[in-house]
Amino acid sequence: MRMTRADVPVPLVRSGEVASRTAIRRANLGLVLRDLNTHGSRSQTQLAEDLGLPKATVSTLVSELIELDLVYQTDATRAGAVGRPRQTVELRGTAFCGLGVEIAATGARAVALDLRDDVLHDHAIAFDRADPDTVLAAVAGLIDDALTVLGAAGSQVLGVTIAAPGQMDRDTGVIRFAAPLGWSEVALVAGLTERLPANIPPILIDNDARLGAVAEYAVARAEGIHDLLYVTGGLGVGAGILVDGQILRGAMGFAGEIGHLPLGNPDLACPCGRNGCVEATVAVTAFLDAVADPPHDLRDLEQLMTDLRARADAGDPAVLAALGMVGQGLGVVVGMLIDVLSPRAVILGGYFSYFGDHLLTHVRGAVEARAIAGQAGGCEIRTSGFGFTGPARGAAHTALEAVFTDPVACMERLSK
Amino acid sequence: MRMTRADVPVPLVRSGEVASRTAIRRANLGLVLRDLNTHGSRSQTQLAEDLGLPKATVSTLVSELIELDLVYQTDATRAGAVGRPRQTVELRGTAFCGLGVEIAATGARAVALDLRDDVLHDHAIAFDRADPDTVLAAVAGLIDDALTVLGAAGSQVLGVTIAAPGQMDRDTGVIRFAAPLGWSEVALVAGLTERLPANIPPILIDNDARLGAVAEYAVARAEGIHDLLYVTGGLGVGAGILVDGQILRGAMGFAGEIGHLPLGNPDLACPCGRNGCVEATVAVTAFLDAVADPPHDLRDLEQLMTDLRARADAGDPAVLAALGMVGQGLGVVVGMLIDVLSPRAVILGGYFSYFGDHLLTHVRGAVEARAIAGQAGGCEIRTSGFGFTGPARGAAHTALEAVFTDPVACMERLSK
Repeated sequence: MRMTRADVPVPLVRSGEVASRTAIRRANLGLVLRDLNTHGSRSQTQLAEDLGLPKATVSTLVSELIELDLVYQTDATRAGAVGRPRQTVELRGTAFCGLGVEIAATGARAVALDLRDDVLHDHAIAFDRADPDTVLAAVAGLIDDALTVLGAAGSQVLGVTIAAPGQMDRDTGVIRFAAPLGWSEVALVAGLTERLPANIPPILIDNDARLGAVAEYAVARAEGIHDLLYVTGGLGVGAGILVDGQILRGAMGFAGEIGHLPLGNPDLACPCGRNGCVEATVAVTAFLDAVADPPHDLRDLEQLMTDLRARADAGDPAVLAALGMVGQGLGVVVGMLIDVLSPRAVILGGYFSYFGDHLLTHVRGAVEARAIAGQAGGCEIRTSGFGFTGPARGAAHTALEAVFTDPVACMERLSK
Repeated sequence: MRMTRADVPVPLVRSGEVASRTAIRRANLGLVLRDLNTHGSRSQTQLAEDLGLPKATVSTLVSELIELDLVYQTDATRAGAVGRPRQTVELRGTAFCGLGVEIAATGARAVALDLRDDVLHDHAIAFDRADPDTVLAAVAGLIDDALTVLGAAGSQVLGVTIAAPGQMDRDTGVIRFAAPLGWSEVALVAGLTERLPANIPPILIDNDARLGAVAEYAVARAEGIHDLLYVTGGLGVGAGILVDGQILRGAMGFAGEIGHLPLGNPDLACPCGRNGCVEATVAVTAFLDAVADPPHDLRDLEQLMTDLRARADAGDPAVLAALGMVGQGLGVVVGMLIDVLSPRAVILGGYFSYFGDHLLTHVRGAVEARAIAGQAGGCEIRTSGFGFTGPARGAAHTALEAVFTDPVACMERLSK
């Protein structure tokens, strides 16, 4: 009963027929790019079918994209033994990319993706302290290095997007409040801009969980999944919600703040001052407390989680019990979110993604016991394939988004 | 940071320029009607400003709507002592209406609204039993009576929409599962159609909480509120969620199923077999149990709630304590929903709407104690002005929706 793209009613076009035609043509150019990004190479006939456009229109659009240097056509090759030689349209690989940077309390990571979602660059650094000055200097260095490396490799960076926890003003680039960093009112974009050379690509910011959801959607879209929920597992726990492929931000911009939903354990104190919060039960610190090892160095969570996964595989009872506790708590909150949002898929990211069925069994059991719709209402629950890199990947996708929305405008900006 | 209507990107138009122009003109006709519905009478200059359209375009659209008999222009009158005489465009009042019918476990209600949202008809009946045959016969009679009364009054019914609790297939008109009615797999639309005369208006069905949200949006839209949450208070508890003016259904159609979210009271058994559910704490039966009166006749909930409100006003300690318990539980779930969805307003409907500040004080207190964003993230919490009539009103709005989407197609269907 979902509306398909073709059912979407035609909205008011305010600025007259000429503007409308130009806007439609530009949007169609973007849709051709998006289709190639989702499905890989495509013949012009397939593109026409995918997009419901006349073949003549597709031919014109493809010519224009070739001129913009965003796609190319392969030489005619025979797909099989019979039939006409088939020429395919392909995205031009590494000429353009988007740079995403995730800032967390213990470090930052830069990921660059090209138009085909291939990783051109992936570099992580650790912080000793997460005060704004330290982090801004380190992240500016990370961006500068990435721009240098990518430039040397012949890839033009279309934009930079920063993923950060907490609440932020995307228009001004200011972090309003980010509990995991201990930040309030930090002018992130301005602070990075003044530490970087002039004429760098535009810098945007967005919430880490939302960008994690964007990264998952780049995969899920090809499966026909347009409504999904991404749950971050780190020092904080947040959700990124996509409804019909769009980020749900909410009227006041706080949507997805699931870290302090009550899980019904009144004895479990949360650093926020309340009791029984989601974060107090399932944040990475709660998991590590439950494992009850000697204190760990949280600056290399990837290695730490890889080690703990190996211990789970080997049947370590402390690790398995801790995963049972986390999975139960996570299942209760995921069940709530399924009742409220009825997504097609729930994807568990961050440290959750390291534990596969060790965790999913408990999560699914708790969902099944609580969610009102049988079999979780047909919603699929799985772990992310991106580990801790999801938000940075989603940020890189977002940095590339302009080229899929209006490639002409994007290329015009570049040539200035 | 919300996108305004003017920011919405122009989508792909698949069927060529001619279709596109027709679709845009028809959509614009609907937007003129919607603007008049939201703001009341409007001069052509005001319409042009509201919609961002050239005055010449508005003039053409108004002429066409006059021809369709949907609007008329007043005689030129002087708005004040100075200035040019002002001619205004008005919706033609009662010539067309939508009929909404809510089915609940104890009775049904029919409400007809005209294009200006004025109530043309409001009639409620009670059931002794809620088995499908009894209800279908009674509801068919209710609809037949309404069509007769409205026809005699010269108002043409554009459509009939049924509001019912639970899960349903809107395409086939089948109720899949409705716990408050004890129904599963009831072919509601087919059952009504076969009990009604031929050539009645089209009958649609939708979920009661979602239609309650639609009724609230008819008011909230004029306040600039486009993201809201409506919570039903009756034998069941559900939520209708509007995101940017659109109903959030979720990929699997279960969105808003909040009745069995856990509120953290493991000792409180719910008829669903789980413990501590929202419904076990705040459904009308839980409230009445807490008041601890002798058993009430639930078939006239309106009178019962009016009486209980009077007792609350008079300081009856049992009623006030019960409202404290309900308000606390409701506040916890509303706080959760605010964290997840970040709406601009939460509106408490059904029996909740009878108790104003007696209830709201407790709800707001619990939200403030739990929701992560201070001051509930700027979200307003209030009671509905529609009492138990919200879902039927929302159903009537939905029955009228076609005329605001494409008035030409709607009038063409009528003349067949």
